[in-house]
Amino acid sequence: MGLDEIDTPYTAIDLARLQTNLERHRLRCQTQAIAFRPHAKTHKIPELAKLQLEHGAIGITLATIGEAEVFVDAGIDDIFLAYPLWLTPHKADRLGALTKNARITIGVDSVASLENSAQTLGATSVEFMIEIDSGHHRSGTSPNDVLAIAQALADHGLTFAGVFTYPGHSYNPEVKDQASIDEVEALTTACDALESAGFEVKVKSGGSTPSSQTTSDYLSETRAGVYTLGDAQQLELGTCGLDDIALSVITTVVSKRGDTVIVDAGSKIMAADKAPWATGHGRVLANIDARITAMSEHHATVVYPDEHSAPALGELIQVVPNHVCNAVNLVDQVAVIEDGGIVQWWSVAARGKNS
Amino acid sequence: MGLDEIDTPYTAIDLARLQTNLERHRLRCQTQAIAFRPHAKTHKIPELAKLQLEHGAIGITLATIGEAEVFVDAGIDDIFLAYPLWLTPHKADRLGALTKNARITIGVDSVASLENSAQTLGATSVEFMIEIDSGHHRSGTSPNDVLAIAQALADHGLTFAGVFTYPGHSYNPEVKDQASIDEVEALTTACDALESAGFEVKVKSGGSTPSSQTTSDYLSETRAGVYTLGDAQQLELGTCGLDDIALSVITTVVSKRGDTVIVDAGSKIMAADKAPWATGHGRVLANIDARITAMSEHHATVVYPDEHSAPALGELIQVVPNHVCNAVNLVDQVAVIEDGGIVQWWSVAARGKNS
Repeated sequence: MGLDEIDTPYTAIDLARLQTNLERHRLRCQTQAIAFRPHAKTHKIPELAKLQLEHGAIGITLATIGEAEVFVDAGIDDIFLAYPLWLTPHKADRLGALTKNARITIGVDSVASLENSAQTLGATSVEFMIEIDSGHHRSGTSPNDVLAIAQALADHGLTFAGVFTYPGHSYNPEVKDQASIDEVEALTTACDALESAGFEVKVKSGGSTPSSQTTSDYLSETRAGVYTLGDAQQLELGTCGLDDIALSVITTVVSKRGDTVIVDAGSKIMAADKAPWATGHGRVLANIDARITAMSEHHATVVYPDEHSAPALGELIQVVPNHVCNAVNLVDQVAVIEDGGIVQWWSVAARGKNS
Repeated sequence: MGLDEIDTPYTAIDLARLQTNLERHRLRCQTQAIAFRPHAKTHKIPELAKLQLEHGAIGITLATIGEAEVFVDAGIDDIFLAYPLWLTPHKADRLGALTKNARITIGVDSVASLENSAQTLGATSVEFMIEIDSGHHRSGTSPNDVLAIAQALADHGLTFAGVFTYPGHSYNPEVKDQASIDEVEALTTACDALESAGFEVKVKSGGSTPSSQTTSDYLSETRAGVYTLGDAQQLELGTCGLDDIALSVITTVVSKRGDTVIVDAGSKIMAADKAPWATGHGRVLANIDARITAMSEHHATVVYPDEHSAPALGELIQVVPNHVCNAVNLVDQVAVIEDGGIVQWWSVAARGKNS
């Protein structure tokens, strides 16, 4: 089926580019002798997670219990929820149900939240990773406080699986390289303290897509996600080229004025993400010199280098969102493109599973 | 049902605040002797559109054919799609099907797109509004070029319903008041030209939520949308108070460090919108001095004035998105709150209907 046979706007994944990205990441991790557990919140698509496992992933990372329910239901049996959860009895029941069919690991970053998990879960096979703050300053404990949490885990008879950090400051071009250094330093400090006290740290997990390109061999596992599909942010960070971007939104030019066209896709299909350092609201797949200069909810303004290069009214163009994770979360399904045509549709089965 | 009986995060609408907002807007439009056709892309909820009609709206405005299909199916019979559509044969068929059960009006901003509509629609009861650019510089023709489009409509035997503009620059605090002036000037220029040439301009439609508060009586119709629910952007623009905000996301504190807490709601339920002039990524309903200072996909960082005022781990707090239109488009349903409890759920039936 041709790209013009579906009403625009719609979201599409180029299968050949996706497979190239998966294989490149597999080889990079193999060279670095590091396991990878990709973050599947990026795509929320079981078919794509299975391709990642075929390309060497040891399991997947997710953000919410609702996402885990979808992926376990699809047959994926090793899941890490990489955040400190605050469990209610109902959330604990949902987590317990998942352990019947999968190995489930969750994050913890304070003795208080650990006590809450212990109380709500009771006897459980859920495993725990202690989150360390390596400079992103979101969740995560200071490396110096890690011992108290490990001791509380032991006191409750819960399984301590290892430590993890998210060097989210790697998304700031000015500190991108420093973030990789911070990541290892924080984990080293935490692991030295734990190992000196007699705790075995099986997993040392880090990684974001930017930092995974320079990850030290100190880590045992990386959790990059965006490497699968790419986006305009990664392009501007230099972690992918335009030819590596596998996801785009197919749009129609509905209005035109000289070098500027308005397309029928906006923040309700591309998401509104725009980092302070971003040069625009997204890019054009076929023209690296064109920019999305403004984003409305159902329209984007695309400026071309000159009137001659701008497409005509009614033409289809493929635009690239700034942040693929939030873009995918807006659609129920994506078209899969091979040899310029749509060959199948994948359900974004975990879309909107926020709790 | 109490707010703590549902797994967080989830999105909720306060019914009393909503009704106050609807009634305030009805009175404002009555005082200004202006009709209102609210933009229902803000909420995408048929039940809420029906409340707007009960509070005096003459019909609704929408953005896409897919949204119109949902609202017509719910029994709403007068819909304006306030954008220049570029119709394929399939989109024309879908639009034609809608006219069997509703009065449908669409936007047009060039002779070329009008010719395309005439060709794909054939004989049709679809009516046309000419879009005028009043300074937002998205779609819309220059007021000086409006005659050629009106003449082309007449040549094709199509119905010319009036003119409209979207003063989207009213969202910039520095030019907010000027945008209302620009809106009237652009419509006046266009209507003078049309009326001098013998065209009757039945509808002169303008409006955004910021500009609708200062709309001149030159307009016959306003299309504000966000006035229903409010959001952190409107709060910062001064068009609503914190007590007027009817939509919030109910979250749990999952991590804490002094005056800073991490809640379990991020851009995948609040959206990533942040205008350059915004002071943060959203607000806290119960504390005007607290700010969302950073937004991840599944978490937000909330900074309180001091440690004493910050909530404890496990506490529920209500956070307010910057831009309610994109926030609502992320969830399948919203809880309706009355007297502090959940009394029903509304389906966000037109969520994700982008084409």
